[in-house]
Amino acid sequence: MSQQPSPNRKTTDAAASTGSRLDSYVDRYATRTHGMTASEVRSLFAVASRPEVVSLAGGMPNISGLPLDVVGALVNDLVAKRGMTALQYGSGQGDPTLREQICDVMRPVGIVAHPDDITVTVGSQQALDLVTRIFIDPGDVILAEAPSYVGALGTFRSYQASVVHVEMDEHGLVPERLAAAIDAVRAAGKPLKFLYTIPSYHNPAGVTMTPGRRAEVLDICRRTDVLVIEDDPYGLLGFDGEVPRALRADDAEQVIYLGSFSKTFAPGLRVGWALAPHAVREKLVLAAENSVLCPPAFSQLTVSEYLAGHDWMAQVKDFRETYRERRDAMLEALDDLMPAGAHWTRPSGGFYVWLTLPEGIDAKAMLPRAVTNRVAYVPGTAFFADGFGSRSMRLSYCYPTPERIREGVRRLAQVIEQEMELRATFGAWGAAQRPGLDAPGPDQS
Amino acid sequence: MSQQPSPNRKTTDAAASTGSRLDSYVDRYATRTHGMTASEVRSLFAVASRPEVVSLAGGMPNISGLPLDVVGALVNDLVAKRGMTALQYGSGQGDPTLREQICDVMRPVGIVAHPDDITVTVGSQQALDLVTRIFIDPGDVILAEAPSYVGALGTFRSYQASVVHVEMDEHGLVPERLAAAIDAVRAAGKPLKFLYTIPSYHNPAGVTMTPGRRAEVLDICRRTDVLVIEDDPYGLLGFDGEVPRALRADDAEQVIYLGSFSKTFAPGLRVGWALAPHAVREKLVLAAENSVLCPPAFSQLTVSEYLAGHDWMAQVKDFRETYRERRDAMLEALDDLMPAGAHWTRPSGGFYVWLTLPEGIDAKAMLPRAVTNRVAYVPGTAFFADGFGSRSMRLSYCYPTPERIREGVRRLAQVIEQEMELRATFGAWGAAQRPGLDAPGPDQS
Repeated sequence: MSQQPSPNRKTTDAAASTGSRLDSYVDRYATRTHGMTASEVRSLFAVASRPEVVSLAGGMPNISGLPLDVVGALVNDLVAKRGMTALQYGSGQGDPTLREQICDVMRPVGIVAHPDDITVTVGSQQALDLVTRIFIDPGDVILAEAPSYVGALGTFRSYQASVVHVEMDEHGLVPERLAAAIDAVRAAGKPLKFLYTIPSYHNPAGVTMTPGRRAEVLDICRRTDVLVIEDDPYGLLGFDGEVPRALRADDAEQVIYLGSFSKTFAPGLRVGWALAPHAVREKLVLAAENSVLCPPAFSQLTVSEYLAGHDWMAQVKDFRETYRERRDAMLEALDDLMPAGAHWTRPSGGFYVWLTLPEGIDAKAMLPRAVTNRVAYVPGTAFFADGFGSRSMRLSYCYPTPERIREGVRRLAQVIEQEMELRATFGAWGAAQRPGLDAPGPDQS
Repeated sequence: MSQQPSPNRKTTDAAASTGSRLDSYVDRYATRTHGMTASEVRSLFAVASRPEVVSLAGGMPNISGLPLDVVGALVNDLVAKRGMTALQYGSGQGDPTLREQICDVMRPVGIVAHPDDITVTVGSQQALDLVTRIFIDPGDVILAEAPSYVGALGTFRSYQASVVHVEMDEHGLVPERLAAAIDAVRAAGKPLKFLYTIPSYHNPAGVTMTPGRRAEVLDICRRTDVLVIEDDPYGLLGFDGEVPRALRADDAEQVIYLGSFSKTFAPGLRVGWALAPHAVREKLVLAAENSVLCPPAFSQLTVSEYLAGHDWMAQVKDFRETYRERRDAMLEALDDLMPAGAHWTRPSGGFYVWLTLPEGIDAKAMLPRAVTNRVAYVPGTAFFADGFGSRSMRLSYCYPTPERIREGVRRLAQVIEQEMELRATFGAWGAAQRPGLDAPGPDQS
């Protein structure tokens, strides 16, 4: 089908090109829109799609290993046999059979749950949105790891939450720092609503909370009565065959658990879930109905048929192998090529390495040069609500092949070395401030 | 797969059965949750599913006419040929090809649009949610027809909007009342954010705004600078071959148009859209990303392939015929069977008849007796933000067969007559207040 320009096209294009001063709606937007800014992740999809650029930026899973013939056949069958259900409105809470199956999917992380406590969502991003919606009034405090998932920070900001970051190290969230942060927030008289954490194969930090730390974090949160939002999209994607035990496995009242099929099956279906105590679950379903009426039956039943008729865990094991190989390629290349002064995490699962640059180099300022050198990453500042992270970056090994990963790291190392040379010549602040680098990077376009 | 009770099940069940006093999270919820109550529509899905009840309550489209073989084959083909796109993350704004096709789908209602001004959403319910999210601060005023769509009212309430209803008659929204309402809100110093209207084949009122009224409404909104949210899920479902011209067709700056494939194709895909001026569209995409990252590529490409490879307009014509036949069955049965004093609208498209009961009869109080007599409807109060509508109800003819519709109306007429007899014996208020009827109806369970 053809597209035809609107007669109003000229006007709106003109308005767009001259910026928000000509946005005639600007005085009418809700206050919450002030916190809604273009996410660095969204715009990096555009950079990532240019074939000459090795993108170590995106978080797209590598779904090329999926058995498309199996999926195609089961969807065909689904439409033929259950089309009247798959194509119709469904329950706001989600398909009952799928909710039973989700209980089975959570067994490996140690969770024993009841299907009635599950709300199926449009990806786990919607679960994050709904949890924030029901708990956060403007100004309420959310604790989050430093760094934290960029998509969560965007959602928190859109509900005008105040995010307080808590230090993490190679063993995950630091319990002493968590306890101190809780005390400080309470002492300041601010309403503390929950801790948001990704204990396993952290995005973007690439670290996993140790079992001892998990017990300590739970203890602290119980003692201080702080709710925990446990985001676990990567829990089954450990490379050593180990599946970390979820926080929720040891506390069904203090923890709301968010899961996703985006990394164990396919993100294009947008099927995730929240497991929450009964009273919270009721609120989540009401919020979900206000938001989308019901999640897509078509996607849900596709996932359900896939889980029922296919060895989905064998597929997860395939994914693990793929990502382990890519993690290895990235770590080897980093070990071989990175200049002294850079250091990085060594993930045992998931998609990401968190790299810290030699002192004095700004990852965001360096990005335009990196893209010119045909490699992309996400600057660390995207993963902080408070402007920190400028010396760091997230490197993804999930999507490019091992060869491309090595080539990407090689290009990145070149750019960092050039940056270090400039710094040696002109000084640290000169490197960050010389003309041209204050122009918006490709992640802002 | 089997389900296994959680060890915490007993606790949470106990908490649920004793009500919200034992909701230990009650002090932590956001203020907005106070406006989130179980929608009468959701719970009526449960009533509607009991086979002995003729449900004139639900708004489920009759998708039994869909060519499942065609849909199954195209989805199979989609996964085989474009699986890497259909199963992957996509753009937050929605698939570009689908957005072009949506421009074509809007041509019959007179809209000439650019694909870049379209945001694909998870059903048009999400479009409603996003529009409300970007415009409404707590206390802001939304004008809506009296009655209005229950799902919109729920969303507006969840953002703590103040809804002011504007009178409508058989020709749609009454322009003089609209102008007066705008003046009154402004005079009271309240921030008026937009008018929400369903001009064509109104849900639940079953009326259509005349062309003259449309021009007047647009004039008033332009003159007073009030944004219009035009919700148009039924625009192509007129029974006389006529397709009403959208408000958006005559104003691209003052009107945000919401569309949906739920009634022209299938609701289980959850694909709708918003067409908005450029600056607003940018905000909508940011809000969509915070909410769900991106709409399901799987659903979007299914719709896209269906539109490209199938005579979708012929299918819409089939749907029109089906619904026209059912509308005829309902109006004939109402004409034949309803007692004097009841009156109702005569829809020329869409899914709904709005029936007003003889004076002194309360539709909500009567509902338990109606369900006992094996017929269900939605009480009129569900469609008002302010408690009005107790004498009215929404009757849907979209889902049951003509025979079932006739039987449902027969049962309903019996119940109304019984109610009238009681009223004649005990007086109007006796009928509404006698013991037992204040118990929650099935739509509250």
